[in-house]
Amino acid sequence: MNNIPVIMIIFGGSGDLAHRKLYPALFNLFEQGLIHDNFAVIGTARRPWSHEYLRDQVSDAVHETHNEVDENDLAAFASHFYYQSHDVTNVEHYETLKNLAQDLDDRYSAQGNRIFYMAMAPKFFGTIAEHINDQHLTSSGFNRIVVEKPFGRDLATAEELNKQITASFAEDDIFRIDHYLGKEMIQNILPMRLTNPLIKNIWNNHNIKNVQVTLAEQLGVEARGGYYETAGALRDMVQNHIFQIITLLAMPEPKDLTSQSIHKAKQELLDSMVIPTEDEIERHFVRGQYLGSDVTFGYRQEPNVAEDSHTETYVAGEVKFKKGPLADLPIYFRTGKEMREKKNRIDIVLKHMSNQYGMAHSNNISIIIDPQMQIFITINGKKINESGIRRENLSYGLSSDEQKQVPDGYERLLHDVFVNDSTNFTHWSELKNYWKFIDHVEEAWQKENEQGQEPEQYLPYRMGPKSAAKIFESPTERWIYE
Amino acid sequence: MNNIPVIMIIFGGSGDLAHRKLYPALFNLFEQGLIHDNFAVIGTARRPWSHEYLRDQVSDAVHETHNEVDENDLAAFASHFYYQSHDVTNVEHYETLKNLAQDLDDRYSAQGNRIFYMAMAPKFFGTIAEHINDQHLTSSGFNRIVVEKPFGRDLATAEELNKQITASFAEDDIFRIDHYLGKEMIQNILPMRLTNPLIKNIWNNHNIKNVQVTLAEQLGVEARGGYYETAGALRDMVQNHIFQIITLLAMPEPKDLTSQSIHKAKQELLDSMVIPTEDEIERHFVRGQYLGSDVTFGYRQEPNVAEDSHTETYVAGEVKFKKGPLADLPIYFRTGKEMREKKNRIDIVLKHMSNQYGMAHSNNISIIIDPQMQIFITINGKKINESGIRRENLSYGLSSDEQKQVPDGYERLLHDVFVNDSTNFTHWSELKNYWKFIDHVEEAWQKENEQGQEPEQYLPYRMGPKSAAKIFESPTERWIYE
Repeated sequence: MNNIPVIMIIFGGSGDLAHRKLYPALFNLFEQGLIHDNFAVIGTARRPWSHEYLRDQVSDAVHETHNEVDENDLAAFASHFYYQSHDVTNVEHYETLKNLAQDLDDRYSAQGNRIFYMAMAPKFFGTIAEHINDQHLTSSGFNRIVVEKPFGRDLATAEELNKQITASFAEDDIFRIDHYLGKEMIQNILPMRLTNPLIKNIWNNHNIKNVQVTLAEQLGVEARGGYYETAGALRDMVQNHIFQIITLLAMPEPKDLTSQSIHKAKQELLDSMVIPTEDEIERHFVRGQYLGSDVTFGYRQEPNVAEDSHTETYVAGEVKFKKGPLADLPIYFRTGKEMREKKNRIDIVLKHMSNQYGMAHSNNISIIIDPQMQIFITINGKKINESGIRRENLSYGLSSDEQKQVPDGYERLLHDVFVNDSTNFTHWSELKNYWKFIDHVEEAWQKENEQGQEPEQYLPYRMGPKSAAKIFESPTERWIYE
Repeated sequence: MNNIPVIMIIFGGSGDLAHRKLYPALFNLFEQGLIHDNFAVIGTARRPWSHEYLRDQVSDAVHETHNEVDENDLAAFASHFYYQSHDVTNVEHYETLKNLAQDLDDRYSAQGNRIFYMAMAPKFFGTIAEHINDQHLTSSGFNRIVVEKPFGRDLATAEELNKQITASFAEDDIFRIDHYLGKEMIQNILPMRLTNPLIKNIWNNHNIKNVQVTLAEQLGVEARGGYYETAGALRDMVQNHIFQIITLLAMPEPKDLTSQSIHKAKQELLDSMVIPTEDEIERHFVRGQYLGSDVTFGYRQEPNVAEDSHTETYVAGEVKFKKGPLADLPIYFRTGKEMREKKNRIDIVLKHMSNQYGMAHSNNISIIIDPQMQIFITINGKKINESGIRRENLSYGLSSDEQKQVPDGYERLLHDVFVNDSTNFTHWSELKNYWKFIDHVEEAWQKENEQGQEPEQYLPYRMGPKSAAKIFESPTERWIYE
């Protein structure tokens, strides 16, 4: 790998994301030589930290995520970090930041390259973008900005934020990050679809009956009740992760693997996204809130959550497209907090086929994303010692050694930002389609709220609301993962 | 199961097959109630055994093959066995046998039902059949005959034998047994083909590149050199087991699962079997003989084997059909003695597909018959931590507990004879096709012999003759199992 000269400015340098994800990922890129001599990182936040204090934090962050660390390397790495106390609303602070960046650019020969990373509370994204523009923080080399989710909270606010960012950055320089796109098994979707005759042959609406995407979390909202009240599962998980996964599953084949071709194919799909009617939302969507247990709060009892909150901690629903290999097929999704176990998986359910043996099970292809990384193919075989058909699971899983080799999503995606590969980032036009869909569902739910319909309360640490079993289009459909 | 009344006469009652396979299998059927009160077994052979001695042999045979035996059941079972010393060429002995069978029929109320089982050296099959006919051993109930392989040693001798048997038995009552058709994974071929959209979709000559059937033995000819000299690998393994496996793989889909429909579909395939030209035999067939090692004889040094023997202990070759889902595809096979390990397997090799990732491996479906029972599907996935594609093996295998539950092929097939299900037996018309092909190859080899070409000598306990790697139609083909 090359040594890429750059000054990186992290807004939110004292925060949890920087500590748990960005600093360890940057260290790994440093160890691989992608950044080496000609880089510096400025961490900014309100707290009055010193450079040394930040460097200690960076060291801690690396130690916490690595079994073995070369201390000389780590010391060399940490020496590239600088702290700037910064109030994002204070215009003068941007001037200070700009000067520090310029100084460091000179010192490290960073060739005027800048990466701005928005790792703060999303409510500040717009303000930061505005001041990057009006205080002219962009420089003479490349200028890239990485924006964490959520990108807006509906189409209107997303458009506003996008306007603020595009004032300083071209679309190609905006990296809307979704760490799911950095996950091993998500990155495996296209290779699996495109390189296997076995899979390619059935990847169409003649053979597939439905697709199911499940992102189940075991945790509740924890300390984040205040933020969560403004979001909900639909905005927090569906608008980004789930829709990106579905897009990869349902997009037409790209001409080649360039970022341009992949985004073109995604856009072709998303332009054909079907916005459900209110009636369809009523029939094919379920929202829920987790109840308490002996030892845990129900959602409405969580700190900073309204007692009569309508915010959903679970959603199941359906999306359809008019184009692509899965055109007109129901693609079901669900995500929730306080589910039985953490389990992120994709199930491709093939159509049942009448055959000479009478009943047989459907063939399924299942991709397990977390916490294991596995692929299952379910086929029918003969029963032993009697007539009839039984289900057989062919499985492949990464070994534990292999799972350890898999880079964290952030490491992959930061690498992509450095080398200017936007394949695995969300384009504005994609985001717009996602928000249109989400807004429509939110509006329908708003009406339901006004009519006194509430999210279904569900028992914690089970499989979510009972009525999620009834969202299907046909009585022969069910959740494969139960 | 029902109690099926029958007198069974085993020609070769003192032999190895009866001891190792038939007696244990009959005991299992007895334990399941298929035969219970109304049956008797007459073991015949030249030796002067008593009924008691045979019963002791039967008990030993059951003990040797079962971990736990109910001794009361075994004693009850063994009491149904009778021994008749018998010279198959002595006409009077058939009269004695007939009378004993009639006596036992009365005693056990066997309703005039007879099963004749030819478990002797094949050279006696014709004589026995002839005397069953001229001494009128068939009775007033059902009369079925089970014939072990080899059924003839070429088409002419098979026709002669068939004529002798059909003098007393209708085609539907002739059970030409091939114990491979009783094996679990062979019986799994049709269910897998017919009940899985995933597999059915690619089971055609658009998607499949070639099929490979490997029956590798680790043993040499051992004490059977004398018999083996008259047979060779082509007659001993290809004419029956390999051709039956290939037939199941390549036959058109049967209308339903009746024996009639399955044999009809098989026949439709076999009528389209392509007889290779001498030139094709030269290019796509290899025959070999194993060499000796420090501690083992080479084939030509084995007892009762000619020093200049041309009998092949290994053969690799190709067969094609004009009809069926695999029409015009090369179906490769190989079988040999003193190979690296015992391994019976089927590999379905899918065509390579150009794709956006450049090179990718072919998808394969592999069915492991012995000694494990497994299915593999090989697909492509992404490499971890770098670009590019790697091969991933999805596998399914019977657990060791399940493998223990799998009945022996003989138990299954004897059961089929009792209940008159000839699905898994070789019809005369199939056999005729197989022999036509074999005869043709043997003739070509005979000519080669006359021109001084000999079977290729191969090192024992490896993968056979080197030139077997060159029998393929295209340079992009190779043995999947190496």
